Amino acid sequence: MSRIVYVNGDYLPEGDAKVSVFDRGFLFADGVYEVTSVLNRKLVDFDGHTARLQRSLDALDIKAPVNRDELLQIHRQLVTRNQIEDGLVYLQITRGPADRDFVYPKDATPSLVIFTQSKPGFADSPQARTGWTIITVEDLRWGRRDIKTTQLLYPSMAKMMAKAAGADDAWLVEQGKITEGTSNNAYIVKNGVIITRELSNDILHGITRAAVLRMAVSAQMRIDERPFTPAEAQAADEAFITSASNFVMPVVEIDGEKIGDGTPGPVARRLREIYIDEGRRTAI
Amino acid sequence: MSRIVYVNGDYLPEGDAKVSVFDRGFLFADGVYEVTSVLNRKLVDFDGHTARLQRSLDALDIKAPVNRDELLQIHRQLVTRNQIEDGLVYLQITRGPADRDFVYPKDATPSLVIFTQSKPGFADSPQARTGWTIITVEDLRWGRRDIKTTQLLYPSMAKMMAKAAGADDAWLVEQGKITEGTSNNAYIVKNGVIITRELSNDILHGITRAAVLRMAVSAQMRIDERPFTPAEAQAADEAFITSASNFVMPVVEIDGEKIGDGTPGPVARRLREIYIDEGRRTAI
Repeated sequence: MSRIVYVNGDYLPEGDAKVSVFDRGFLFADGVYEVTSVLNRKLVDFDGHTARLQRSLDALDIKAPVNRDELLQIHRQLVTRNQIEDGLVYLQITRGPADRDFVYPKDATPSLVIFTQSKPGFADSPQARTGWTIITVEDLRWGRRDIKTTQLLYPSMAKMMAKAAGADDAWLVEQGKITEGTSNNAYIVKNGVIITRELSNDILHGITRAAVLRMAVSAQMRIDERPFTPAEAQAADEAFITSASNFVMPVVEIDGEKIGDGTPGPVARRLREIYIDEGRRTAI
Repeated sequence: MSRIVYVNGDYLPEGDAKVSVFDRGFLFADGVYEVTSVLNRKLVDFDGHTARLQRSLDALDIKAPVNRDELLQIHRQLVTRNQIEDGLVYLQITRGPADRDFVYPKDATPSLVIFTQSKPGFADSPQARTGWTIITVEDLRWGRRDIKTTQLLYPSMAKMMAKAAGADDAWLVEQGKITEGTSNNAYIVKNGVIITRELSNDILHGITRAAVLRMAVSAQMRIDERPFTPAEAQAADEAFITSASNFVMPVVEIDGEKIGDGTPGPVARRLREIYIDEGRRTAI
């Protein structure tokens, strides 16, 4: 399979999709990204992702190389050209190429790279029926996790620690409290209340998180936004994560302790169903 | 000027020096780097940099794509082809290209990129005669600063904060103590004792730091490896930084307070002289 990839105005076969070695995305991780899911060839919560992208760009003082409508058109072109029925669109904007210097270049042109990943039927993932197992590891990431940068080495290392332990993912722990997953927000449910860490610089402001909490409120569920400990998570009635690529995914085990009866809980199952239905309905 | 850049076996004009957008160096900052200075066309402390490179690669479980002798040969080729009398050789190794996934790819081929930067006469920098002014900013970097990764966005942001404040660089502060500079190790001198933070995961294990401390011992200077506060730095007799690209650079002001009489101190001046002399003498 050879995808078509968008690189700075061109649609290229993936083997030709390249950036300069002087791109600050390559040399300094000086760039931000977004991942939008595709269901039935349509983009889920595109405007949520575009709004967060702008927030990340503003935080780093990078000028968006294209506007929202151009971005949408490129996303749609790639979905069509690569025949993505279900899957993901990944977009990355960097400060662009410049001779290497810690000082931001005055006149660099930001780079824009967009590619697709096909995941046929991923909304019906069998994993959602059995749930994920989780380990906890120390959160060693930088202090501005609210900016969605490509400084993803530690989340990647944490994912490898999870894999080595035979688990599906890791939840990160800072000062005794869980911040979030490697690339997703973390939740527990206790006595009918959904508990998830409040927004701050400590965690990513998940687009799926915002949508799921909005839907939970509409469904008369109670929400308590606060940090929680690994022990509290192990004693919860259920647990789950949210992300653009996994929607709502039940968590059934944390550090070897079964959550509830060790199967996906009713809150997670219901939110997954509502979110995917609503995602399909409002996708553009 | 068009440099010749080394990319994965090829010597290319800098405009053609590119890597795949799927390179994990671009997508995850999953890579490490080294900067070696060149004086009179020779490489300063090449083996120190090679040893640290291997340590960084081991920490990330990335296999070196070339051995020490091949690396030296490429460095020398670039110095010759680009006519670098004085300057820097930058090298970066990443885990290589793979379809995007937080899990490390099983079979990716690591990427190797090497380029030069010409800095004629930079060992006689006029800045060394006046010294740097420094501001302190909070250290928000990740927790494994001993691995020399390309996750350099925050150091770059801190450098911009320094620039905005009219200063030359920033020293980073964690829990009330200075860790290091944006891309250098930090030192103060009080009553004849050189004080610098001890090695740990909190700071880079500077190659220039190791050499300078070794030379300080040979010169009968006293060294105390421990963390120090910004206030202690402001009250010091002198201050300086070390890095491969700045050798030993005096610091004359911290957060608006003059250090000593506000001019480069004798310890910094002497260490700079010794280091550059020794660097020239032992360069290969």
